[in-house]
Amino acid sequence: MARIALTWLAEPGNRTVWAMTRNDGAPATLDRLLSGDNPDPALRAAVLARTGSADPRRLAEAALRRAKRLGARVVIPADAEWPRRVEELSTLELDSGGRISHDTRPPLCLWVRGGRLLDESFHRSVAVVGARAATGYGNHVTTDIAYGLAEQGWSVVSGGAFGIDAAAHRAALAAGGLTVAVLACGVDRPYPVGNTALFERIADAGLLISEWPPGSDPLRHRFLIRNRVIAAATVGTVVVEAAARSGAVQTMGRVLALRRKAMVVPGPITSAMSVGCHRLLRADPAARLVTNLQQVLEEVGSIGEYYADSPRGRVHDRDTLDEESALVLEAVPRRGVASPDQLAATAGLSLRTVLRRLSLLEMAALVVRRDGGIALPPRARPPGR
Amino acid sequence: MARIALTWLAEPGNRTVWAMTRNDGAPATLDRLLSGDNPDPALRAAVLARTGSADPRRLAEAALRRAKRLGARVVIPADAEWPRRVEELSTLELDSGGRISHDTRPPLCLWVRGGRLLDESFHRSVAVVGARAATGYGNHVTTDIAYGLAEQGWSVVSGGAFGIDAAAHRAALAAGGLTVAVLACGVDRPYPVGNTALFERIADAGLLISEWPPGSDPLRHRFLIRNRVIAAATVGTVVVEAAARSGAVQTMGRVLALRRKAMVVPGPITSAMSVGCHRLLRADPAARLVTNLQQVLEEVGSIGEYYADSPRGRVHDRDTLDEESALVLEAVPRRGVASPDQLAATAGLSLRTVLRRLSLLEMAALVVRRDGGIALPPRARPPGR
Repeated sequence: MARIALTWLAEPGNRTVWAMTRNDGAPATLDRLLSGDNPDPALRAAVLARTGSADPRRLAEAALRRAKRLGARVVIPADAEWPRRVEELSTLELDSGGRISHDTRPPLCLWVRGGRLLDESFHRSVAVVGARAATGYGNHVTTDIAYGLAEQGWSVVSGGAFGIDAAAHRAALAAGGLTVAVLACGVDRPYPVGNTALFERIADAGLLISEWPPGSDPLRHRFLIRNRVIAAATVGTVVVEAAARSGAVQTMGRVLALRRKAMVVPGPITSAMSVGCHRLLRADPAARLVTNLQQVLEEVGSIGEYYADSPRGRVHDRDTLDEESALVLEAVPRRGVASPDQLAATAGLSLRTVLRRLSLLEMAALVVRRDGGIALPPRARPPGR
Repeated sequence: MARIALTWLAEPGNRTVWAMTRNDGAPATLDRLLSGDNPDPALRAAVLARTGSADPRRLAEAALRRAKRLGARVVIPADAEWPRRVEELSTLELDSGGRISHDTRPPLCLWVRGGRLLDESFHRSVAVVGARAATGYGNHVTTDIAYGLAEQGWSVVSGGAFGIDAAAHRAALAAGGLTVAVLACGVDRPYPVGNTALFERIADAGLLISEWPPGSDPLRHRFLIRNRVIAAATVGTVVVEAAARSGAVQTMGRVLALRRKAMVVPGPITSAMSVGCHRLLRADPAARLVTNLQQVLEEVGSIGEYYADSPRGRVHDRDTLDEESALVLEAVPRRGVASPDQLAATAGLSLRTVLRRLSLLEMAALVVRRDGGIALPPRARPPGR
């Protein structure tokens, strides 16, 4: 009850409230704040303004009753299902360049709609976020990645916005997977209302969660506060499309500061919806460019877990051929066959070198023996250029 | 004459020929090779095969006569216009992973068509290379970048292929700039023939150059050998589009090994023509993602040369706002105005903080004072989300 009341007195993530709660517990912190006893003048002013018209304890009771009618529950750090990863927000300092981490402390509580346990849902989870004004390209890529993640048993986490967020949830649901929407308003307040049916499906098959009590409005600054939970609760975050000035870019700032896996999908440089993605990739070497599901899985999976799928080892990959093998492969005619001698002459290499490289190229199925000579395999195209 | 004959005996870049020439000079090296006196068995075999049917000295004389008729000249390191940067190829070791640098040594000579001097043409030069099967996107981006480079007084360097290469030359010519085509065949052998008219325009306004004497065929392995000259002679290389198995990717390997500026344009992950670009960006942190001309100029220009264009300093850029300023900006209503008190309440910040941040936001023109309150400037849109 005290944690609910505290979340109403100051926005979630408030440093002072979080530090006081950690030291003295939530009930004592609530008492102190209500009596005006706290070291932060801005917080004192905020408490004064908010308690002028209402009693926070009564509001907390009302929120709990409302949640009960709705079938929602409130989860606090003492609960077994609390997602431990969000506690790392306690150490988040955004950067050393003078910026502050005003509202970046861990949540005091989480409101939850849905039958799954929080900790299990976030254990193997990837956030997929991005622009509301997503393009067809962004929606396509999001669907591919989120569907694949869900198929592989990963939870998909996102906000509740149109565009990339909605596409990610829909794809995870379509794959029969678990999807989690982290909202910046009450879990009973579908926002945007156009996603109402989607939220109901998520509550049925996955989880709707929020730091704000039922009935809370989706105030604009809350989206920025909410983003830190998406960043902290997941193993990594994929930004699919993001305009230059977007919440997804801010989320990725949190992801990087928390040293979670930061994954960014590139796009056409002519698309405004990829400008934020490219800025992220240019700004921080820790932001990893990803181009498909496999690469996302490699980032978030345990080492080796997802490398086995690769049909060929690197050594035999045409793109990583040594110089001599590349010259031999270049010398193989587009049509018909050539003898090793002919290849040696064309490639400017010794016959011995050619024979040694041919056996490697043959093992890698990059050339075949046919009609008494060496040929390209059916449908293979030479690099040329 | 000896250097021309040597290039005919062994493909350009040959380590042994280059080392012997450096130590003993070209005439003595030619004598030794023709007498079978060299330490490299593959080279001995190649010389034997090539001298069976022709006399390299006579062929060199014929090539020079042919060049004279054509208005072409041959340039060697002793000439004042020799582009010094290519000499750095002498130290090129591709990597430590067991790959060899077979044909990566500096050219022995360069055949040149065009009225410009080689050294001046390469002094401020950027290579723009990529796929033959370029998409509309690739052609568009290439045109933008190459036109801009030429406008800014940079030479544009590329191969002679269809697609990105041709688009780069055409854009540079359209801008009235200097463009250099580095060919893998004789400078009198338009290849592909579809680019014949383009090559004539390049020879008129820029330079056609090649390591191979006039009349030489565009053998496929020569494109890979040629690429090292493009990489070495320029300040940096931009890859606009590249398939996974492409010459442009190999060129970028040389660029990176030579520590030239390696610039890569991303594209849709759904495009096969961007697969090579994304692989380069993932494989090597030295490969720099670029999204416009300005970023290319920043890479290749002297420090500070191209930063002055930036209309606002970083501090005032909306995308790099500190947390508090971002919250204040978020709190400004989409329509109408708000008082600083209202902003403080919405943002959850103290009035003092809001006033301090507002003055910065106002300086940056991200908010304006209007009708006794704070408003967004005309046409600005809030980030939301």
